[in-house]
Amino acid sequence: MSGKEQRVKPRRLKGFQDYTPQIMAQRFKVIDTVRRIAKLSGFEPIATPALEYSEVLLGVGGETDKQVFRFLDNGERDVSLRFDLTVPFARFVAEHSSELVLPFKRMQIGDVWRAEKPQKGRYREFGQCDLDIIGAESIGADVEVISSFAQIISELKIGPFTIWINHRGVLSALIRQLLRASSTEESAVLIAVDKLDKIGTQAVKELLAEIPSVDKNRIDQFLDLLTAKDQQGHSDLAAIEVCLADDQAGKESVQALRDFMKLIGVCTPADGVCIRVNLAVARGLGYYTGIVFETTLDHLTGFGSICSGGRYDRLVERFSSQQLSGVGGSLGLDRLVAAIQETGQNIANEATQSVFIAVAGDESLGYGFKIANELRSVGIRTDVGLKTRKLSAQFKYADRKNYPLVITVGSDEEKTRTFALKIMSSGQEEKNLNIMHLTKIILEKL
Amino acid sequence: MSGKEQRVKPRRLKGFQDYTPQIMAQRFKVIDTVRRIAKLSGFEPIATPALEYSEVLLGVGGETDKQVFRFLDNGERDVSLRFDLTVPFARFVAEHSSELVLPFKRMQIGDVWRAEKPQKGRYREFGQCDLDIIGAESIGADVEVISSFAQIISELKIGPFTIWINHRGVLSALIRQLLRASSTEESAVLIAVDKLDKIGTQAVKELLAEIPSVDKNRIDQFLDLLTAKDQQGHSDLAAIEVCLADDQAGKESVQALRDFMKLIGVCTPADGVCIRVNLAVARGLGYYTGIVFETTLDHLTGFGSICSGGRYDRLVERFSSQQLSGVGGSLGLDRLVAAIQETGQNIANEATQSVFIAVAGDESLGYGFKIANELRSVGIRTDVGLKTRKLSAQFKYADRKNYPLVITVGSDEEKTRTFALKIMSSGQEEKNLNIMHLTKIILEKL
Repeated sequence: MSGKEQRVKPRRLKGFQDYTPQIMAQRFKVIDTVRRIAKLSGFEPIATPALEYSEVLLGVGGETDKQVFRFLDNGERDVSLRFDLTVPFARFVAEHSSELVLPFKRMQIGDVWRAEKPQKGRYREFGQCDLDIIGAESIGADVEVISSFAQIISELKIGPFTIWINHRGVLSALIRQLLRASSTEESAVLIAVDKLDKIGTQAVKELLAEIPSVDKNRIDQFLDLLTAKDQQGHSDLAAIEVCLADDQAGKESVQALRDFMKLIGVCTPADGVCIRVNLAVARGLGYYTGIVFETTLDHLTGFGSICSGGRYDRLVERFSSQQLSGVGGSLGLDRLVAAIQETGQNIANEATQSVFIAVAGDESLGYGFKIANELRSVGIRTDVGLKTRKLSAQFKYADRKNYPLVITVGSDEEKTRTFALKIMSSGQEEKNLNIMHLTKIILEKL
Repeated sequence: MSGKEQRVKPRRLKGFQDYTPQIMAQRFKVIDTVRRIAKLSGFEPIATPALEYSEVLLGVGGETDKQVFRFLDNGERDVSLRFDLTVPFARFVAEHSSELVLPFKRMQIGDVWRAEKPQKGRYREFGQCDLDIIGAESIGADVEVISSFAQIISELKIGPFTIWINHRGVLSALIRQLLRASSTEESAVLIAVDKLDKIGTQAVKELLAEIPSVDKNRIDQFLDLLTAKDQQGHSDLAAIEVCLADDQAGKESVQALRDFMKLIGVCTPADGVCIRVNLAVARGLGYYTGIVFETTLDHLTGFGSICSGGRYDRLVERFSSQQLSGVGGSLGLDRLVAAIQETGQNIANEATQSVFIAVAGDESLGYGFKIANELRSVGIRTDVGLKTRKLSAQFKYADRKNYPLVITVGSDEEKTRTFALKIMSSGQEEKNLNIMHLTKIILEKL
């Protein structure tokens, strides 16, 4: 099973990452914040499988079908790795509808896979933290989801951020009334609009001009309406209402957008967040039906959205005769960690009350472990030297690992039930100490 | 994208589970305990991808090659879902060896996939919590890994448990000296021995008799030695030493087993654990070279191992010219949760200091959210009614969700900045309360 003749190159797949302890500390910080806020707000954790029948995941519109990892398993079943946590959740709701008390508020944290072209900050495997509410039509559900995400991002203290709000119904009405696009080509228009930030207005104009049913003379006006901003940085809803004077559904969507903004204005408590209407927010995925949102960090323009989602009132219908409205969003775990690193912040800076025990000889390992267990039992992080032949190598190791205190134990210390201590920052050394002394030193010096 | 014509059956793949909020609470309890103990003992978290090149994972011996989910990705790469966290870790160590300070102690929690026949407590997707130490030959590393697992299982308070210890070198020597099996057939013997618990002695005898080089006359003696126990329930090492009098490597392995037992006897502090030598522990995987272990719950005989592993001193060699010893193990997250359920215990029983806010009419949602945010900010779990048309339905929902306190808010309450409260257990109601009153009631009544 080993040896030179069979050596395998230790390589990783393109677009897949190893996470080091430093990155993991930041991931856990985000995950723990999501878990805490979600719990306080009554969201309940669930998990679903990484693999699903392909028919469950595919065909929800947008560009995802091309991006899934899809294969035949050993039993010739057509299976795919999930590309998001939303479609499997709709399957979950349909499958467990008889057990769920509605409205059901879910929290889920998990990895998803997309065979996209890997690029900076974009990977083929990445973590998502999702919050959703199923079975509530009220705009209050949209507010609850989005303000919970605002609270989470705010508590991570990575600087001011903006949540951009739109309503799919407003976009649909404009596409219908202004561009005169056929309903079958609406999604092509949405996919083009979704690229505004990435490829710019001119390139989006060209994409729109290629869609057969689009009225070429209205493209400029359409994009002007989507991108115009008032003095507060909001899209101009009054101008939109003029355009949609004859479109009842469109006018209702504008009103829903106003209602949402009013309600979230009253009750969002998060620090550092600004919530703005932005009619250019389209969302690439096909399943949204109402409010949609994206989130950007103010000091990282061009980094893209770190948290997005919206209302998907017809997704559960895909699996069930029951009509159940839904609204939710995904916080991009690894995008957020990448953003944290981009800003040079270390959000996982922890107290380093930790001790390394250097052991002089194998015969003292048991005594070393005994002391380690006593320290660990009172919450002090403790490591024990396993290369007992050289004390100097153990000190070097403790130094590279940034242990502030190093204890030395040998057979003399074991006889007297004591140990020697070195404070690494000052080089100060003391002998004949016991656990009581050490606890005092830790409280005083660290 | 939706509608009857395209309805998809909401079905899951065989052997794959959905986790409900109740199960998730137990999973988080286990995960948080692993994270806490691992951190106290100086293990550092990492993560690796779910997908790897197939050549990285396959060919480590045992029965795993048949069980992997393997396919060609969109770029025609031969890829597989990981079947454990150990082989990818060896790849990780070889790839990052220049950055790692050795010995490196890793903690990893993640899902793995095996296309096994699904059965009670055995799934095709399941979680593992791994602890490993790379770069330390000392038996102290084996002790550190196994006593850390003992501490984790002990803190979960699911009853007394036994960790069964063996040494691959002892088994190899017995297979060589007693059974006279050829070295190429050693792994076939190990796979048969690994089945002792599952299929019984007689069936294992028949399996061994089918292996060509095995001395048929020695099978009974071999299995007797493996299964004989002294009065303390340990395997009989003295009898083994007689058998291996002429086998230097075998005698050294017996000594290593004795050294391990002596050291772990000195320093294991965990409550409820018994550590015993058991020569019948073989471990199915091919990569072990030294101490191996399995763990059973004393009150769930026949449930199988919940935590196992061992030393794998030649696994990193598979990917690197560097020789790095390794020792580690996996706690079966979902096996442990299944065991907890089997015993009927609910280890995740949490304080239910929580409040439901019933809202009389959409116009009072903003006020409801305001109160919710105040309560959440002081750590009280709070949910807001989103079906504002019927108060009675909101009370029914709060009751089904076991909220002990329900607040009602409407336009009158908003004007006076107060709310009404119902204590669900007694039916007692009070009006004109504010947040101060509520905090007092929560402290007194819950």
